[in-house]
Formats: sequence, C-alpha cells, structure tokens
Amino acid sequence: MILSRKNEIHFERLKVEKKIRVGVIGYGNIGKGVELALAQNPDMNLVGIFTRRSLADVVPKIANSRVFGISEVEKFVDDIDVVILCGGSATDLPEQGPQFARLFNTVDSYDTHAKIPEYFGAVDSAAKKGGKISVISTGWDPGLFSLLRVIEEAVLPQGESYTFWGPGVSQGHSDAIRRIDGVKDARQYTIPVESAVDAVRTGEQPELATREKHLRDCYVVAAEGKDLKRIEEEIKTMPNYFSDYDTKVTFISPEEMKAKHSEMPHGGFVMRTGVAGGNNKHVIEFALKLEDNPAFTASALVAYARAACRMFREGQSGAKTVFDIAPAYMSVKSPEELRKTML
Amino acid sequence: MILSRKNEIHFERLKVEKKIRVGVIGYGNIGKGVELALAQNPDMNLVGIFTRRSLADVVPKIANSRVFGISEVEKFVDDIDVVILCGGSATDLPEQGPQFARLFNTVDSYDTHAKIPEYFGAVDSAAKKGGKISVISTGWDPGLFSLLRVIEEAVLPQGESYTFWGPGVSQGHSDAIRRIDGVKDARQYTIPVESAVDAVRTGEQPELATREKHLRDCYVVAAEGKDLKRIEEEIKTMPNYFSDYDTKVTFISPEEMKAKHSEMPHGGFVMRTGVAGGNNKHVIEFALKLEDNPAFTASALVAYARAACRMFREGQSGAKTVFDIAPAYMSVKSPEELRKTML
Repeated sequence: MILSRKNEIHFERLKVEKKIRVGVIGYGNIGKGVELALAQNPDMNLVGIFTRRSLADVVPKIANSRVFGISEVEKFVDDIDVVILCGGSATDLPEQGPQFARLFNTVDSYDTHAKIPEYFGAVDSAAKKGGKISVISTGWDPGLFSLLRVIEEAVLPQGESYTFWGPGVSQGHSDAIRRIDGVKDARQYTIPVESAVDAVRTGEQPELATREKHLRDCYVVAAEGKDLKRIEEEIKTMPNYFSDYDTKVTFISPEEMKAKHSEMPHGGFVMRTGVAGGNNKHVIEFALKLEDNPAFTASALVAYARAACRMFREGQSGAKTVFDIAPAYMSVKSPEELRKTML
Repeated sequence: MILSRKNEIHFERLKVEKKIRVGVIGYGNIGKGVELALAQNPDMNLVGIFTRRSLADVVPKIANSRVFGISEVEKFVDDIDVVILCGGSATDLPEQGPQFARLFNTVDSYDTHAKIPEYFGAVDSAAKKGGKISVISTGWDPGLFSLLRVIEEAVLPQGESYTFWGPGVSQGHSDAIRRIDGVKDARQYTIPVESAVDAVRTGEQPELATREKHLRDCYVVAAEGKDLKRIEEEIKTMPNYFSDYDTKVTFISPEEMKAKHSEMPHGGFVMRTGVAGGNNKHVIEFALKLEDNPAFTASALVAYARAACRMFREGQSGAKTVFDIAPAYMSVKSPEELRKTML
C-alpha cells in the first residue's frame, strides 16, 4: 500500500511513541473526570494533578495519582506532553489559559461564549510564542455540539438549525436561584420540550419561541419561616434566567435534595433540517444523553488532548478549536486502521 | 484580535477568492444531486457536467448547466478547481479516481468497503504526482457516519458502537431480487428494528444479532404466471442478502410500484454508549432521516469539495478521507466567524 509521507510519519510515530504524559490543573468535578478518563485511554499517563487546594485536603479518585501544588507545574515542562486545564471560565481560565499556553500544550473547556474571540486571541499569541498547541473551548457545548453545528450547516446549507439542551442540571440557573434571599439550596433542570423536538424532526422548520423550546424545573430548599410565594415569584420573574420560560418551582427538604438531586445529568440535541435535491427534506440529529456531565466533558477533553499532542509533534502551533482539528487526531487508531475499519 | 498566520491567510483568502469552479463527472442520481446542491452554495459555480451518455439524451436539471462529453474534461484543467466524481464504485471509480486525481482536485463517494485501502493507495499516489487533493469515500456512509463512528469512539473509549441503517431503499438488495428468475422489478427497504434502537438508547449495551437489528421489507413485481411461492422462498433464503434477516415479501403491480415506490429515502443511526467517570452511562446518537438519499449524498460531496479546494490552496496534496479533514474547511464561514457564531 502506498502511503503519503505524512501518514508514514504518523504511522511510524504511533508504533514508537511513548504514552502521552498528561498534567491536570484544577481538581473540581472536571479534573476528577479527567483523572478517571485517562485511566480509560491506554495511550495516556497521568503525570500529576496540580491544585490550589491544600494538599492535605485532596484525596485523588485513583489511589496512586500524584498531587502537587499548582506552583510546581512549571518544574514539569519536560515531563508533561499536554496539560488539561480544568478550572472555571469566569476567573481561572482567562488567566491560566494564556499563562500555561506558553509552556505546555493545553486543552480547556472555556465556555464564556461572548468572550471566545478575545480568549482565542490571547491563548493563540501565547501558544505561538511557546511553539505549543492549545485547544480551547472543547467538551460537548462548546465542543462536540459546536462541531456538529458546523458540519450540519455545511452539508445542508439551505435549512434551519436548532440546539436543545437537557434534560439536565444547569449550574448557572441553580446558582441564580441560590442567590435569592431565603434560599438555602437549589437545583434547576433544563428540559427540552418534547413536542418542539418532534416538530423539528418532521423537517417542517418550525419557528420556536424561547418558551416553546425549554422548560425550567426548579427544586428549592428554603430557609425556615421564609415566604415561599415570594421566592417562587422571584424565581419565575428573574430576567434572562427564567422570565422567558415556563418555570415550575417545587420546595423540598434538604434531605430530599441530597437523596434525589445530587447527580449531574445533562445532554441535548443539535439538529438541522433542510432541503436538497429539489424540495426533498432532510433531518440531521446529534443527541447526547449523559448521566454525568463533567465526566463526559472530561472524556472529550482527553480525546482533544491526544489531538493537541499529535498536532504539536507535526510542528503546528497556536490556538485551535474543534473546527480546526481533523478527527483522526482524536483517535488512538492509526490512519490505516481507521480507513480499514471505520470508514 | 490576534490571529494565527494560517488563519490570517485563510481569512484573506475568503475575502479575495473567486467562486470555487466545479466540474461534475457522471450524470446519474448523484450527479444530478450535485448539480442542484451547487446552486445552494453561493461560493460555488458549476463549470460543466461531463458524461459518457450521448449529449442529445442529457437534459440538465438546471436549464443553463453546460454538458460536455467526458473526453473533454481534460481541456478544463485550468478552469476547474475541483471535480466531483459521481460514477459508481463497481467499475467507474476504480478507474476514474486515480485517472483524474493527477489532473484535478477530486471528491468521490467510493463505497466498496473492503477495497478502500487499495483505492486510497492508488488515488493517493496519483494525487501526489499531480500535487492535488482527492477526498475519497465521502457522502453519508461512508462519510458522515464514518466521521461520527470515530468521534464517538474517541470520546467514549470504553463502550460499544452500533450502526443502524434505514428506513430506506437498498439498491444492492433491490438489485439482488431483480436477478431472480420471474422478477420484473423489486424494491427493498432496510428497516431498523425500533426496539433494538431503543435498547441501545438505554445505555445497556445489548448484544444484537443481525436479525435483531434490521428487517428487510421487499416489494416485488413478478412476471405473469410465475410461481410466487418459489420467488418468495428464493428471496428469503438468499445467502448474505436475506437469509440472516426477517424478510417480508409483498407482490404488487407495476402501477403500484411506480406510484408508491419511486422515492429514494434513507437514513440511519450511528450510536455509541459507554461509561465514563466511574460507572456513569453516556449515550451518543447521530441520526439521519433523508427523503432523497442521492441528493443528500451529493450535498455532502459538495461540502467536501470546498474542503478539497482549501486544502489544495494551502499546499497540501494526496488522498484524504473525512478523518483527515478539519471541519472548518467544509464551512463557507471564515474561522473568525465560526468561532464567534458557532462555538
């Protein structure tokens, strides 16, 4: 079989390359998910978890995972192939992204949509200076959902796109409820309206108002003696978060909250319907049903960490998004194996 | 905003580049679909349809499409940016793929799975000699389905993958029935078993026998006076095609065949379920529901034709599959616009 030079190199590399050595910065839910996901990928090794927390307080999920203070990570520049940044988008990543992109190949899940161009610019500049690759804003949304939005639109240019989220816990909406006076705890589920999803599936391209696409289902623990009517009203009329939606509020006990609402399921649908070949209708649908949102996000970050290492080894540098990454880079399989078994 | 050099070039190019000039070789259902799809893409122009048929017999779908004999195409090497090869995989593409890959950037839907590595090698060698890009084996399966198989496996390495096809017309199975003595016409629908698809969606990773995944629903026009029992038996016991499936055979009149079975719907599902983050289950599903299989295939070919041109303009060459192509290349939008609006 005749191989392209690039593919020869790729193939040789896969045979000889050592495991990908990964550092994890940040040890919240996503960091823990990355730790577990690395153990599912035979070509990857966890070098260490780097955290701002007191080391005495950190108990890794996997007994032999090594934990270090975050200030130590720079000592590992020669021992880590890619760092997965597991901090939050509000304050951690805007600082850490550009900071670490100069030193390491990085992957992150930066999700402040309005600021992505600015963040891309800062990380791109740093990564280029260091000759490294930084994959920004990956996970499932932004991430796989973004990827599917682009592919679906490219193959059905004349059509309409829809994204539905859930059923799943929205951290932002839960936090918004928790800020209301008298609320001790809250969990908000975003629920796609089934009839709207079904209407899209017909290919009829319905126009859907915000209220018609998603319901908001809230479970609230109130402090004793607080006016529940007032809390419910404050939730339902909260601008941006709830006022444009049909919102259901249920008050529950702290015990029920713990027993029934401790999981972090999520998911959703990226759909596009359009015409091609005269007036023939076509429907494309990508759906995720996730029992654990941060664990799945972490799994996606790890696949893109593999891609980052491979692009770096080919001499590429700069910030990349899911749009810039050929899917073969994400797979543990060689290009020959992919063509033979997956095409 | 700071842009990478490659992206600067990309962006500049989008502003100044002329429309992509496309040639279509082969004018069956896919060629007709490509002709119509090009009209849906504002950055593309059809230069001409090149056919082996007698020109007098070819009536293009769009009145001002130009039609030429296939031998004329080499005169257009300077006027065509990419040729979409719309011939069949059995005899046309094994010859045309390597032949035209030396002269043009090409895109095809080669789908003889067992011979893909060999075909890739032949086309890759030719494309490299000519300094061109050839995207092979695209469409939806192989094509988008292959892409999703790889992405799904990469993000859920510990799991199980499933592909279901249909409901839709299988040309191969319809042809197989037509070869039976006494059959004048036939149409075979491949139908995914709904309970099997639902079982996969639970995340339980069922083991499914061939018979449990798909039904085969056949509509047959028999020649007068033929033994219908014998024909039905021959269909149901045909090895590879039907014997491993539950098969339904319905005899109909030529009029009913024409009235009810002239469309070419298809579609299917690419699913993967797996665990990540301890024992949490995750389900990924990609689904297509197509009213017109060749029209949708053609639409995907056109998106990959855009990718081929862009990769060529960046100086790349050789055969590529969907695995090797960053999704941004498929989109008419610039990288900046994609990051701003689609991420």
